[in-house]
Parts: sequence; structure tokens; C-alpha cells
Amino acid sequence: MSPLYVPPPECLLKSFTVPRRYLFGPGPSNVPPRILTAGSQPMLGHLHAETIEIMDHIKSGIQYAFQTQNRMTLAVSGPGHAAMECAIFNSVECGDSVLIAVNGIWGERAAEIAERIGAKVNKIVTSAGSYFRNDEIEQALSKYKPVLFFLTHGESSTGVVHPIDGIGELCHRYNCLFLVDSVAALGGSPIYMDKQDIDIMYTGSQKVLNVPPGTAPISFSERACCRIFSRKTKPVSYFLDLSWLANYWGCDRKSARAYHHTGPVTALYSLREGLAILAETGLENSWKRHKDVAAYFHEGLERIGLKPFVEDKKARLPTVTTIVAPPGYDWREITGYIMKNHNIEISGGLGPSVGMVLRVGLMGCNSNKPYVDMILEALTDALKHCHKSKV
Amino acid sequence: MSPLYVPPPECLLKSFTVPRRYLFGPGPSNVPPRILTAGSQPMLGHLHAETIEIMDHIKSGIQYAFQTQNRMTLAVSGPGHAAMECAIFNSVECGDSVLIAVNGIWGERAAEIAERIGAKVNKIVTSAGSYFRNDEIEQALSKYKPVLFFLTHGESSTGVVHPIDGIGELCHRYNCLFLVDSVAALGGSPIYMDKQDIDIMYTGSQKVLNVPPGTAPISFSERACCRIFSRKTKPVSYFLDLSWLANYWGCDRKSARAYHHTGPVTALYSLREGLAILAETGLENSWKRHKDVAAYFHEGLERIGLKPFVEDKKARLPTVTTIVAPPGYDWREITGYIMKNHNIEISGGLGPSVGMVLRVGLMGCNSNKPYVDMILEALTDALKHCHKSKV
Repeated sequence: MSPLYVPPPECLLKSFTVPRRYLFGPGPSNVPPRILTAGSQPMLGHLHAETIEIMDHIKSGIQYAFQTQNRMTLAVSGPGHAAMECAIFNSVECGDSVLIAVNGIWGERAAEIAERIGAKVNKIVTSAGSYFRNDEIEQALSKYKPVLFFLTHGESSTGVVHPIDGIGELCHRYNCLFLVDSVAALGGSPIYMDKQDIDIMYTGSQKVLNVPPGTAPISFSERACCRIFSRKTKPVSYFLDLSWLANYWGCDRKSARAYHHTGPVTALYSLREGLAILAETGLENSWKRHKDVAAYFHEGLERIGLKPFVEDKKARLPTVTTIVAPPGYDWREITGYIMKNHNIEISGGLGPSVGMVLRVGLMGCNSNKPYVDMILEALTDALKHCHKSKV
Repeated sequence: MSPLYVPPPECLLKSFTVPRRYLFGPGPSNVPPRILTAGSQPMLGHLHAETIEIMDHIKSGIQYAFQTQNRMTLAVSGPGHAAMECAIFNSVECGDSVLIAVNGIWGERAAEIAERIGAKVNKIVTSAGSYFRNDEIEQALSKYKPVLFFLTHGESSTGVVHPIDGIGELCHRYNCLFLVDSVAALGGSPIYMDKQDIDIMYTGSQKVLNVPPGTAPISFSERACCRIFSRKTKPVSYFLDLSWLANYWGCDRKSARAYHHTGPVTALYSLREGLAILAETGLENSWKRHKDVAAYFHEGLERIGLKPFVEDKKARLPTVTTIVAPPGYDWREITGYIMKNHNIEISGGLGPSVGMVLRVGLMGCNSNKPYVDMILEALTDALKHCHKSKV
């Protein structure tokens, strides 16, 4: 042994504590004690019988939350971005044509991921706060003949929930897979994976499910699996290769599970518990509560002189509300004031909405009217005390 | 809203509990209550000031554990395999020549990852239980002129700890980066990233650090960064792109951190705590304890008639011991018996060592003599009660 030349860092020799805070930004949302407690149960091996049983429960929970009977349903061992890469890496090969609907940041990200693996990426773009009509989508499908069409269900950067009906059918008419990002909407806004002909869908754990970030539910239709399992080249990622993940999650028809990677065991406990809470609550109750609470919030905003950014009421995402940035104010001062004086996180815009909006997320256990009142009070207080220039 | 056609799953409507078990396989290892408790603290936003401070502590903790002053030090939001892909995806471009040392499963995995992104992969291979001499490595460096040389420090499939001295210098003489996988060895066996001229090194959280799987410390030398930041093409993965991760972890020189992905906040609390325990213990004490406990175990094995698989004593990995599979027995029956009757996980071989060995991991808090006695007792009991054929 040689002497050490990097000493133990001072900062680690003190204990650390974490403040309690209202997380009303676009995520992560607050995690209820029940879920934190589930995640602090003793470690198990990642292939122990009990762990596999928990994984099976998670699969059932995702099937319920997604309203799908897809056998190929599992959770990626990473955040939503890993699931986005899992979806695209597996379904797209170098040189394939891909169509991406961009009405906020998530489409841009999907395009970037597809470009990196050598896909021919075409985009349809609409302004922040709006969405696509099915005939616009059909026109692009017909023009670009993509193997995959990407759409964001809940565009958290702009606050839009995108209509889904009829799009899957269109995609299939053009021999194209339909991929839906439902990270910010799932559990808060209705979606029916099978009935709406969605081929690949994923979400994150840290939104409506109120589970710490680090796992990402994903599901693949039979049609998607057929394409994926007849590809000519291996996906670029071994870690996200569906043929390995399928075996690890017991979604293939093999009896034994081979070692692929070590899954995040305790994060799976938490995910299981978040899905259990959704099952106990009932999807329809959860959808209705998010809708009612959002409507109550939007009315309150108008009352205090603020304006929801999305004009079309039925296109407003019930989980993340975008508010037109109050004219004359610096949005950073408002979010900073509310964090400092009310212990509440709300956030500014992201990507195309930077500087244009404030964003407030009310997801899962955070979706309730007393919290709305608290936020309205905080916003009113901020508008009174933050600096306002003459507009 | 349409009616639901997938009902809430019965299995989620019951509560679940997790048994306590001794995790003496090759990982995950047991997680002490202190670390589980740290991970169950309240959620924070992934870019809140307190979270960033915790990330800074983690960076310092990794610098200490790796014995490096590399600015580019962070934790990947995924398991060790994600870190392996992060290392290779960033440092290798399509068409690059890569040299992989294979003396167990990890080299095979690294080769697979590099092949998937179009690298020209050359391997040097040695039999399970052995390691490479520096002159063999030099010969291959000179022949293949790779941009990257991959070596496993602690080969958990065969139980070998690989000598590191002099290899980094050789790599640099041949204008090649030196990448070391220290998932199974870090904290349990000496390694000095800077002094041993290692350019990229990563580990997992679930081994000596006793942290739940799901985060993976990684560090890059200045030389590695120069190569990575002057590449001609973008890495295939956006999620693992070092230029983004560097900003997210405050390793670049920019003052603001842009949103990249949502890190696993509570998993970072746990990782911070695991690194804090290592800093309190002291690296040298930890190395010494693992060495002493392993030696005590190896003596005990000989006493009960079992044989360590690695003949060269100084090449025995102090964290994961491989034992020659007892002749005449079915190894599955032994591991099953010990799990069932002693509540202890030990494991069979992996990759090239399947059927040849039993594997016992004693890592971090599990590395102590009373546990060794417990395992020896369990093995003795298993050899007495499991079926033995005539050899």
C-alpha cells in the first residue's frame, strides 16, 4: 500500500439533513412516507424469488396504469430519459426514417436521440401551447413514411395534453409504430394504450406516481416486438437492449432469467408501492381528481389576475399547469420569492417556453385543493412583493 | 372517459414485506440501516441547492475513494452497466480500435458494448482465474494501436484482483486511454487512479459501498476529457453524454447547470452516506480489513476441505472469493441448501466460471470474521447434507 494523497473530504465527515419542501414544480413531486418507507426495506438480491415477485407486481401495476395487456411490460433501471432511449434504440435502426412531433422540449429530445443513432429524422413542429390535428399527422406520415412516430402525451414544458384518439390507427395504416411519451401525464390524464393503438409507451416514476426518480415504466405492443425482434442490427445499447430486458423481467417465454444487469432493488420496492397506491385509488378517480383540481386552480389563477398559457381549455394538462409569465416581472424573482418565503417550489419555463411561463405541477398526492389555495396565496404574495416594471 | 378494461391487479392490493437475508453473493451486499435511512429522507428537486451540495459531497467522496483529483468526477444515474456504457460511449467512436482484456465476464461485456457502437474490437484472453503480465499487454498495445484499453480490476466472475502498476504508463506510451472497471474491488482492494495513470474508472454502489444499486461513480482524467471533448461525432447516447453530465454535475466551468435528466435524488442521499462511511472508516483500514477477512476465510476454507479457485494468493480478490466447486456435488443444491437453511445467499459461477466455482462476497459491512465463521458453518453443513455422487 502506498500513502493516500487525497484525504477524506471534510464535508462527508458531518451528517446531512434534508429540508421538507412542497415540490410543486414539474417534478419530482413529493414522495409520501409510505413510499419512502417501502424503499427503505432491507436489500434483497436482484434475482431472489421475492424480488422477482415484486417485479411481477410492478408489471401488473404498469399494465393497469397503461391500460394494456402487453406481455412486454417492464421498468427501465433509470430515469425517463433512459426509457426514451430504450424505446428509440430498440425500435429504430441506423438509416430508418423517423417522424417526431415537436410541440415542446420532449420532441426535441426524442429527435436528438434518434439522430445520434443515425436515423433520418423528420419533424412536424407547432408553436408552444398548441397541438397537432390528425390530418396534419397523416400528411406527414404519408410524406415521410417513417418506421416510428413520436408524440408527447403530456408536454410539461408547455402545459399541453395532446389528444391521442385515432393517431395509432393512422400510424398503422402507414405501417409505422406509434410511440407515446407519457412521463408527465400518466395517471393524471386518461390514456388507454391498447385501445388507442399505442405501440410503445413509457413514463417516469417521479410524477403522478410520487416515486423517487430512477425507474421508468415502459411497455411494447406485439407489433412493436415483431419489428424489434426482427431487426437486422443490434441496438447500440447493451444495457437497454429489449431482448435482454425482456428476459430479465420474465417477459419472454424462457423459464430462466439470465444475469443482465443489477436492477435498483429498493427503487423497485418504491415503484411497486407507488403503483399500489394508484391501484387502490383507481385510475378513473385519479384522472378525475387531477382534472378537478386543475380546473379549480385555473379558476383561481384568473381570479388573482393570472392567465393559463394554454388557451384551449381541453388541451390543458391536468398535472402541470403553465401560466403566462406575469408582464413586468422577472419570473426568476417570483419563483425565488416563493421558494424562500413559502417553502414551495414552482418553476419557470423549459426549452421553448423559457421566459414565457411559470409552471406549477400538482401530481399524485400533491393534487388537492388545499395545496391549490396555498399556491394561489403564494403567487398573490409574490406579485405584491416582487419588483414590477412599467409594462 | 371510456371504461377501464384492465382491472386493478389483486397482487397490488395486499401489502408486501421483505425478508432479512445475509447477502454474501457477489452483490448487491447488505445495506446498513444508516444508508437505508439516508435514502428515505424527504424528496428534493434534482437541481435544488441542497441537492447540488449533496452531489458536490459525492464528487469529493468519489475523488477520495478513487484517489483522484480529477475535476470530471460524478455518478451515473444507473447501475454499473450504465457506467460501463458511459465510459465506452464517450471515449470511443465508430471505427476506433479498442483493446479489451478478457479474464472473465466483464471484459466480454465491454467488448460487446464497444462492438455495438462500431468499434474494431481486439481482445487478449486468458483463462478464468489468471491475469495478464504487462509485457503481454504491451505486445497487444503495440500490435492493435487501440485508442482505449479496458481492464477489470476486480473480476468477480473468477475472483481475481488484477495488478494495475505500470499499465497506465504503457497505455500512454502507445497513445491509448486506460479504462478500469473497479465495480467489485473498489474500497476493498487498493487502487490509486491518478498515481496509477488510469484515465477512466467506474464502480458500482452495491458492492463495498453497501449502497442500493442504481448509481455508479465514474471519473475521467484530463487526458480522457481532451480526447472525449475533441471527438468528431456525438456519443450515441444523449443520456450518458459526458458533455451534458459534466454540466449537470458542475464539472465543467459553466456557472449554471442546465436541465439534462432527473437524477435519482434519494439514491444520491444513500450514495452520499455510503461514501461518508468509507471516509470515516478510512480507505486504508477498509483495504486492510477486506484483506484480513478474506485471508481468514481462505484459511477456513482449506480447513473444511475446500479450495480457493485462484491459486496465486496475491491475485485473490479480497471482496469476492471463488471456491473450486466441491467435486461430486451439484453447486445449485449447495447454494439452495444454504439459502434455505441458513438464510444466506452465496452464488455459483458466472460466464466463464459457471459450474466451476462457488462465489462468496464479503463487502463493506459484510466483511468481518463472525460472518466468515457463519459461512464456513453453512458450507460445512451443506457438504454434509447435500447429495454427493462418487467422483
